[in-house]
Amino acid sequence: MGFFVRVLFAGATLLLAMGYKQYKDATKPVPIPPLDLKEYWGAGDIKQYKEDTTIKPFNIAYSPEVIEKLRSKLNDTPTLVKPLEGAAFEYGFNSNRLQDILKYWKTSYLNKWNEREAFLKQFPHFKTQIQGLNIHFIHVKPKVPAGTKVLPLIMLHGWPGSVREFYEIIPKLTTKSDDKDFVFEVVVPSLPGYGWSQPASKQGLDPLKIAVIMKNLMKRIGHQKFYVQGGDWGSLIGNLIATLFQDNVIGVHLNVCGSIGLQTILKTVVASFAPSQFIEEKYVDYYYPALPKLTFMLAESGYMHLQATKPDTIGTALVGNPVGLAAYILEKFSTWTNPSYRQLPDGGLEKYFTLDSLLDNIMIYYLTDSITTSQRLYYENFSKGGATMAIGQNPTKVPAACSKFKYELMNVIDWALRDHFTNLVQSNHFEDGGHFAAMQLPNVLYKDIITFVAKVEQ
Amino acid sequence: MGFFVRVLFAGATLLLAMGYKQYKDATKPVPIPPLDLKEYWGAGDIKQYKEDTTIKPFNIAYSPEVIEKLRSKLNDTPTLVKPLEGAAFEYGFNSNRLQDILKYWKTSYLNKWNEREAFLKQFPHFKTQIQGLNIHFIHVKPKVPAGTKVLPLIMLHGWPGSVREFYEIIPKLTTKSDDKDFVFEVVVPSLPGYGWSQPASKQGLDPLKIAVIMKNLMKRIGHQKFYVQGGDWGSLIGNLIATLFQDNVIGVHLNVCGSIGLQTILKTVVASFAPSQFIEEKYVDYYYPALPKLTFMLAESGYMHLQATKPDTIGTALVGNPVGLAAYILEKFSTWTNPSYRQLPDGGLEKYFTLDSLLDNIMIYYLTDSITTSQRLYYENFSKGGATMAIGQNPTKVPAACSKFKYELMNVIDWALRDHFTNLVQSNHFEDGGHFAAMQLPNVLYKDIITFVAKVEQ
Repeated sequence: MGFFVRVLFAGATLLLAMGYKQYKDATKPVPIPPLDLKEYWGAGDIKQYKEDTTIKPFNIAYSPEVIEKLRSKLNDTPTLVKPLEGAAFEYGFNSNRLQDILKYWKTSYLNKWNEREAFLKQFPHFKTQIQGLNIHFIHVKPKVPAGTKVLPLIMLHGWPGSVREFYEIIPKLTTKSDDKDFVFEVVVPSLPGYGWSQPASKQGLDPLKIAVIMKNLMKRIGHQKFYVQGGDWGSLIGNLIATLFQDNVIGVHLNVCGSIGLQTILKTVVASFAPSQFIEEKYVDYYYPALPKLTFMLAESGYMHLQATKPDTIGTALVGNPVGLAAYILEKFSTWTNPSYRQLPDGGLEKYFTLDSLLDNIMIYYLTDSITTSQRLYYENFSKGGATMAIGQNPTKVPAACSKFKYELMNVIDWALRDHFTNLVQSNHFEDGGHFAAMQLPNVLYKDIITFVAKVEQ
Repeated sequence: MGFFVRVLFAGATLLLAMGYKQYKDATKPVPIPPLDLKEYWGAGDIKQYKEDTTIKPFNIAYSPEVIEKLRSKLNDTPTLVKPLEGAAFEYGFNSNRLQDILKYWKTSYLNKWNEREAFLKQFPHFKTQIQGLNIHFIHVKPKVPAGTKVLPLIMLHGWPGSVREFYEIIPKLTTKSDDKDFVFEVVVPSLPGYGWSQPASKQGLDPLKIAVIMKNLMKRIGHQKFYVQGGDWGSLIGNLIATLFQDNVIGVHLNVCGSIGLQTILKTVVASFAPSQFIEEKYVDYYYPALPKLTFMLAESGYMHLQATKPDTIGTALVGNPVGLAAYILEKFSTWTNPSYRQLPDGGLEKYFTLDSLLDNIMIYYLTDSITTSQRLYYENFSKGGATMAIGQNPTKVPAACSKFKYELMNVIDWALRDHFTNLVQSNHFEDGGHFAAMQLPNVLYKDIITFVAKVEQ
């Protein structure tokens, strides 16, 4: 071996070592900044604030004027531009389909608003003040015989969802049945700035800080230890609760188990060379080929890019604008349920959802004027260069379950997830289902949750 | 030298050669697809189409009902969400500032709408049918003594602009003055789907195809040879005209001279190591440091990402929605004029623009219901994976001028531009000015145009 070769080998070894060190440095747990569990998010000076710790029942009640105002807006909609010839949902929400939905909304749906309002009120609603914000939540205590094991569970919604996402699954979870020997006491909050929860007046309320508020909410209700479930932002925030407050979380169940750190990316790339070495052959197409998955993500993340940079602009375009809200929100319920729905003239919206359920969710955004404040969460999350998400990749020992729905925007292989979830108890694949699993396939999600909890409780 | 070293050297040489070949392959002129100069973009079957080649005067005239309808919308705006404490325009358009503008719009501006309408009508407007679309344009023939050299010039606007961008500069260009021994006959079209130009009914009307329509428009008017000027989409389309139809373009003047090809990126990266070797020291900060420039581009391109993927969704949120249009469009006139305006409570909008001029432009979008179709251009441009932009990087021998305004979203160094503009006659830097140069600094842009044309005409 000549001198040059030896130098080369030495150099290559050094590079490898440096690369490994770089990798270890880049993927080691991120120091968690000191958490202020009383950080104030309300208006003005914290000195003028005295927290009212009572929990007050909250009633959903809108005056007929508010509903008639909406009806008059829907009776006087702008001239929508026709879709291009041959286009279904490829260019976004199809305006022919939208006209049909707007018609249903202003007639069938609003005509029975009392019934829909009663539907939304079917569970006990409450508000309580936390860190300067009035936080809204549904709280269902099961009616069960003494001795039944009752487990507290907080369920966290996402964007453009709301507490409405959980209406079909709540009764299943809170009722005793043959398939489980426990039952849940369910808490379903509206995220701050979403629905009936007050938005922050201060800058910086990111998912990490929301995790603190949610933890404080559970404490206020009287639960020091609880289960966590979530999708979308609810998944990210739920994951942060299970990472920051490991002693308080009995188990965490997420649809959308994702973390976009360096380690995840590297492992995803490595596994792409021989996926079936890392995933059962029949599930490979949940993750690969990577390029079409990335292209799809790119096509579907324009809203995120905009909301992460100009939430107040897009919010202003949508607030109080039922036509815009319907197009902007329902596009997600179509494409994110199944990408192939982009080729359907009706967007496949009613394959799993009823128009009533979809409109319930839009009504919550419309009635609470919360679209702008809901979109600010993207800004807060991304403006710190992903620092929050990095913390969400720190290892957690909390027992975890990830459900992988076939048409979810992104699924991550267990090999990568286990760096974070060191106790990944369950990882199930489902041959159907998309981003809004709780609403789309409540039975499937329910079964997955109780199977997981049974394992943890054993 | 040992065997391994020789193998290594041979391998390295091979790699370099391959790299160079790859680079040459990736940067060589792209074959231009066969251009159908009669491609049909109207509704239905081309067989039922017979082009009406007459040029008809067009009158801007809206009924009082239309204006009162707008006023009633502005009198009944939704509850806007307050800005976060301490925020100016960082989260997007500031809603306090928006309230002031909406108030001005519904009172001062609409009260003098007759005057504004007359202002918009001050130049002769026309329509003519091209490839199935009724194309609107302003056409100003100078009134000059016989013997004066008259040069045809097409001026192309961008998004979210309109023909209104050129109202301040048109009189300067079409009037004889001491600073030039020629005068322009100016054609200012609305791009298809913008303002008063009919939108395509067919999919695929990208900048390349619009370049064909614009070339046909100039031919229809009677100009086989002409100058081209443009910014934003107008720059991209103008560049394509000057690339596809090199024998027809006498000279091309662009603000925003950009092309985002591999060659440009590589040269930009190479030059970043020692910028002052490539650019005069005092202009280095127009281009570098690259990272903050890229970060800014990322923060400012959310709208593009959304419009390139879901134009019909965002269009539906904005069409017929004056509040949304004002926020969405004026945000660009604030931040793209100077990034530091994000920190100003009033967005700096009136530092160079009058509210009247800004509202004129918004009125065009509102009155023509064209926001959705204007946004589809992003989809058409990007859906082919940048193929159109690649063609725009093919070399052109047409004499070219690039004006570099300091706060333009992106400026490209001449070393990279010269691969494309093989006859770059002029490249001037301006210490102020942003994306809407024609409206912001009409005198500066005017001087730059006539200086360039004087050189070409010599």
